[in-house]
Amino acid sequence: MHNYESGKRWSVGIIGVRGYSGLELARCLLAHPAIEKVVGFAHDAAFAATDYLPVDEARRLDIASLTALHDYAPQCQALFLATPAEVSLEWAPRLLAAGVHVIDVSGAFRLVAGDAAQQRAIYRQWYGFEHPCPQLLEVAQYGLFPWIAQTPVGDGPQLIANPGCYATAILLALLPLLQHGVIDPDSIVIDAKSGASGAGRRAAEHLLFTEVDGDCLPYRVGRHQHLPEIRQAVQRWSGIDVAPAMATHLLPVRRGMLASIYARLAPAQDAEAVARAFANAFEGYPLVACEALPASGRAESFAVSLRRVVGTAGARIVYRVDGRRLYLFSLIDNLLKGAASQAVENFNRLFGLAPESGLLDRKGTL
Amino acid sequence: MHNYESGKRWSVGIIGVRGYSGLELARCLLAHPAIEKVVGFAHDAAFAATDYLPVDEARRLDIASLTALHDYAPQCQALFLATPAEVSLEWAPRLLAAGVHVIDVSGAFRLVAGDAAQQRAIYRQWYGFEHPCPQLLEVAQYGLFPWIAQTPVGDGPQLIANPGCYATAILLALLPLLQHGVIDPDSIVIDAKSGASGAGRRAAEHLLFTEVDGDCLPYRVGRHQHLPEIRQAVQRWSGIDVAPAMATHLLPVRRGMLASIYARLAPAQDAEAVARAFANAFEGYPLVACEALPASGRAESFAVSLRRVVGTAGARIVYRVDGRRLYLFSLIDNLLKGAASQAVENFNRLFGLAPESGLLDRKGTL
Amino acid sequence: MHNYESGKRWSVGIIGVRGYSGLELARCLLAHPAIEKVVGFAHDAAFAATDYLPVDEARRLDIASLTALHDYAPQCQALFLATPAEVSLEWAPRLLAAGVHVIDVSGAFRLVAGDAAQQRAIYRQWYGFEHPCPQLLEVAQYGLFPWIAQTPVGDGPQLIANPGCYATAILLALLPLLQHGVIDPDSIVIDAKSGASGAGRRAAEHLLFTEVDGDCLPYRVGRHQHLPEIRQAVQRWSGIDVAPAMATHLLPVRRGMLASIYARLAPAQDAEAVARAFANAFEGYPLVACEALPASGRAESFAVSLRRVVGTAGARIVYRVDGRRLYLFSLIDNLLKGAASQAVENFNRLFGLAPESGLLDRKGTL
Amino acid sequence: MHNYESGKRWSVGIIGVRGYSGLELARCLLAHPAIEKVVGFAHDAAFAATDYLPVDEARRLDIASLTALHDYAPQCQALFLATPAEVSLEWAPRLLAAGVHVIDVSGAFRLVAGDAAQQRAIYRQWYGFEHPCPQLLEVAQYGLFPWIAQTPVGDGPQLIANPGCYATAILLALLPLLQHGVIDPDSIVIDAKSGASGAGRRAAEHLLFTEVDGDCLPYRVGRHQHLPEIRQAVQRWSGIDVAPAMATHLLPVRRGMLASIYARLAPAQDAEAVARAFANAFEGYPLVACEALPASGRAESFAVSLRRVVGTAGARIVYRVDGRRLYLFSLIDNLLKGAASQAVENFNRLFGLAPESGLLDRKGTL
Repeated sequence: MHNYESGKRWSVGIIGVRGYSGLELARCLLAHPAIEKVVGFAHDAAFAATDYLPVDEARRLDIASLTALHDYAPQCQALFLATPAEVSLEWAPRLLAAGVHVIDVSGAFRLVAGDAAQQRAIYRQWYGFEHPCPQLLEVAQYGLFPWIAQTPVGDGPQLIANPGCYATAILLALLPLLQHGVIDPDSIVIDAKSGASGAGRRAAEHLLFTEVDGDCLPYRVGRHQHLPEIRQAVQRWSGIDVAPAMATHLLPVRRGMLASIYARLAPAQDAEAVARAFANAFEGYPLVACEALPASGRAESFAVSLRRVVGTAGARIVYRVDGRRLYLFSLIDNLLKGAASQAVENFNRLFGLAPESGLLDRKGTL
Repeated sequence: MHNYESGKRWSVGIIGVRGYSGLELARCLLAHPAIEKVVGFAHDAAFAATDYLPVDEARRLDIASLTALHDYAPQCQALFLATPAEVSLEWAPRLLAAGVHVIDVSGAFRLVAGDAAQQRAIYRQWYGFEHPCPQLLEVAQYGLFPWIAQTPVGDGPQLIANPGCYATAILLALLPLLQHGVIDPDSIVIDAKSGASGAGRRAAEHLLFTEVDGDCLPYRVGRHQHLPEIRQAVQRWSGIDVAPAMATHLLPVRRGMLASIYARLAPAQDAEAVARAFANAFEGYPLVACEALPASGRAESFAVSLRRVVGTAGARIVYRVDGRRLYLFSLIDNLLKGAASQAVENFNRLFGLAPESGLLDRKGTL
Repeated sequence: MHNYESGKRWSVGIIGVRGYSGLELARCLLAHPAIEKVVGFAHDAAFAATDYLPVDEARRLDIASLTALHDYAPQCQALFLATPAEVSLEWAPRLLAAGVHVIDVSGAFRLVAGDAAQQRAIYRQWYGFEHPCPQLLEVAQYGLFPWIAQTPVGDGPQLIANPGCYATAILLALLPLLQHGVIDPDSIVIDAKSGASGAGRRAAEHLLFTEVDGDCLPYRVGRHQHLPEIRQAVQRWSGIDVAPAMATHLLPVRRGMLASIYARLAPAQDAEAVARAFANAFEGYPLVACEALPASGRAESFAVSLRRVVGTAGARIVYRVDGRRLYLFSLIDNLLKGAASQAVENFNRLFGLAPESGLLDRKGTL
Repeated sequence: MHNYESGKRWSVGIIGVRGYSGLELARCLLAHPAIEKVVGFAHDAAFAATDYLPVDEARRLDIASLTALHDYAPQCQALFLATPAEVSLEWAPRLLAAGVHVIDVSGAFRLVAGDAAQQRAIYRQWYGFEHPCPQLLEVAQYGLFPWIAQTPVGDGPQLIANPGCYATAILLALLPLLQHGVIDPDSIVIDAKSGASGAGRRAAEHLLFTEVDGDCLPYRVGRHQHLPEIRQAVQRWSGIDVAPAMATHLLPVRRGMLASIYARLAPAQDAEAVARAFANAFEGYPLVACEALPASGRAESFAVSLRRVVGTAGARIVYRVDGRRLYLFSLIDNLLKGAASQAVENFNRLFGLAPESGLLDRKGTL
């Protein structure tokens, strides 16, 4: 393992730096001790980092226009695509060809299971487009931590598909239990809620303040594109085929994601088995905290507050066993563990660092 | 049936008029064509109706202190208890003894199933108190519409237990399907979300703006006191014993309640069976609208917006069948259909009026 | 005066019915006893009224596409333009030519003072466009109530410029005091705050939930286009030239507008003079309530709550005299008194009805 | 000057650590390189730091009950009172007697101008109590930065009155301009808006989510207790007597404070004089950023977003000169610069450190 204490430091670029995830990426990377230089590429030529970032961070962020990217790319060791899938599909092949690691925050390369025909079909069904570079689905790696950490990094420039926010929150809670046979795979129901920043900064009528405030809209009921992503990841790491019920809801909050998950314990499993599965899965991985839901009213609420994770790179999983039923609450910051900070974990893996490198000091506000 | 078109009009009182439900009751009753006089009893002697109600409504609301209640009671034909359970337990016996109909918005008289010992036990478990007047549990009626409408009104002063807000939203969606055998009773999962007004106006740290805003707190997970209420109502009207998973969440919105419900279709049942069950259950009852969730993004959102029900006496039930899975979304205004307006439906039944009398013109704001 | 009790009823159309003001107009007009038929013209062919309005209102609203407008126009007695200024500028001349009254909710015809050159200059400065039909500025009337009510309606089709939301809130508080010489015109400072719906339903990045929530953004500081509108109206009805300081702020609330206004009493004026000026100005006009700010904490807050006006056609003006200083708080629903319901007042005037006709029963939610 | 790079480190205590300011103090002090040990004293015996703070911070915070305070006090070099004025009045004399520096975040010792009779009168008028330890008003220092930094620290245990949140935001904007004669002191109008956390964590009906959301309530209009505090500070540091109009408003946001201030330039003063006054006042003090309000819409908004200060120890002052008018916007985090982080500045001064020591790395979330 390389170690940044050895003094080695890298240069990175972010495409789409003005978006919500792009800015969080910039902040994470600027604070990263192993990173020497961060260049942000913005579509908007008038982009001024000082409008979006604290002065001292804005000063250290180099800004360049996208047209300059092909000049810059060779000077970077990794490029982050904090862009919509359509844009990622355009840039990823060129950057890989230029010999740079690519960490893509969009869904463009996440659905890699099956043969070429299956991949095509699944992108058509869930993303509504014809995948233009299916050959990259052969080489892309789905970068879910801590699981991906086991996989050795291959040779040459890597293409990492950073997991979706819902997928991350849900898989962190479900995978340990499925891997250890603690729950009945057919019993899973997922009711997930996301802050509005998850939809990005693009102007859209249904995301106006006047539309979102005072409401809690279900959307893409049973049809969210993170559903096949979850199924593929469960298959990959537990060998089990699941088809959970899943509804996503738009919360009138800026940041934070809560997945409320319902399942039945498998025969002979109990609360201790739940605890063991989590302890086992997250041993040595400091970015997830697990606990049983306390009984008392006040403590029950504190245990599952979004405030505990917003602004941090960590996840919280809180559970309650009630007879044969299991209630699971998985909380993340949709822009950090659900996007930017997990992308940094992926960077860390590519460069031989511990996943949490540079991320532990991200602190939320109360 | 009496009919207020005949000119007959009644006088009513509201105990706890300053609370959120009490004020909504006042507004519903002041607008009711069959009601001549509304007296609000407030605990707080300094209570000024003009601080809380539009001028013209405030002017028509008589205000009296609770100490004057025993003088007023005989002049009223019905009294509404918009009070916490502890207060309702104190007043209900006295008012019934004075010969007045009592419509209680609290949970004090809702859990009426079983024998005296079972009733005592269930109140101890779910409400944490020793029920002080178990004999009233023998006579109380659980006033869930449209189902209660079938039951003839008994002789003498009646005690009506107005259903809880969560119970109302959930039963409206589940009872028709269970009665018609459309879903598997063992498959039910309920993820319910309520606006903060559901917790009432009492000062409480965990309900401060700073605590609620930006969060979506699960609470009383699997332990909400509306759970036994739901089970008893399902048993009463469908003969089925259910034990659903149920988690309630506190939304950062003022008003409105969304119950997202997940179930599996029973064998040989399909989307049409769902539609038929609802059509059947709500025939002739104009306060529930049912529809299949539209496919397109924008229409999908409009179909399940809280804005469609907030400020109205109605409920919306929206469903999607996805293979053998059923997604159900039930929306109400927690203060109206979940409290005040259903209490008026109960008043209407006692006085021989159609349930929706005086309620159809309640219009939400967009 | 015609009176709708005589049975005379009219047909009207709304252009831009899908916007926030357009929908409120539709609701006001559908509830208006003198209006027989309301046709809504939407730009969006897929517009479905049931997505936005309660079922019974949606059913009674005729929807037509804009292309059908020239066929419909002659059947209407008045057309409301709930459209951006650019669109109003296009439609108003054609509709007037077709012989229909036009009530425009945009700013396109509000700045009518001065000669043609001055009008051109002022539109260039404050709206940023070259006014394309300056001849209409000769005939347009600025429809601020109650003041406009004094002016007789002219012959032929009228063009009414419905006042801006900020202008309405501010003029209601200032005009009576300036007319009666109660305050020093040079001392006025206006700090106005608006709910996000004031910006309309058009998608815009800076109006996304994630941008607006948690903030209170000052904008167009000293440069809001309602400033010249206020100056012209003050000049017209009091003969005084004012140049107040004025900053507008975007509140993280959906509906409601609060103008906090600061001034100094003129010599020999006092709290009673303030009360007299308001009593005088609003005598016989039921849509404004004035009161002195109560001293006690709780009552102070209730007096100035947006909840008192949101959903209603009324305004509240609350004031406190503190030595020679005057604090004024003017509250309206930006979509009603600040747009739709004042447009209905203008309709009422054109058709010989009292301003408040059809508007008194608009009730807010608590 | 001592310097913590010399290795000297101190122990401190926080009374009232569970409050919003108390917790922010804990976080600031735990991150401070010159502080070795932080003990939090909570009124509530069941207080668990892990419920409120990230795990790693909670672990390093010692918790003790208030009854143990007299044992602990001698081991601390400074104690912070993050308590209501009544509680501070009780503790401050005892702690000073025990030889410890006291930094009080309440208003108990801020109004120190005048003789004993005047002090008594002013506390009666603005705080509603008879000051129980007027002798401490003789020795208390009003700790407003950067101005207090000029005053040498006296001998023995010091009593520091940490400025109020509104006073801080307003004085930072006004003092430089008054000191340099840039504005007319009689022309000042202050419209201040605060997030709800400013009212603390105590349960209160008017601070419930349902009451605060959707509103923007003016309160204590012309009567806020920070008004005499502002007047005394202006008198102390500029020799000028001011009596501004001032209304405070409760924003439906959790954190952040915006003071919108209006004034007229003094004769011969201009935008450059404004810029010079600020540059002069804040030279060498990195915790205030000043800039002229940009003209363009987007940049105008970014310049005055609360998001730029929330979570940070800094203030932003943004101004626009419009003819002879001056618009000033002063933004702070009410819990940091308006309470906790300025208290740390006061600690730094007492121990010979630069004001910003340990505070520059407090970063907001976007």
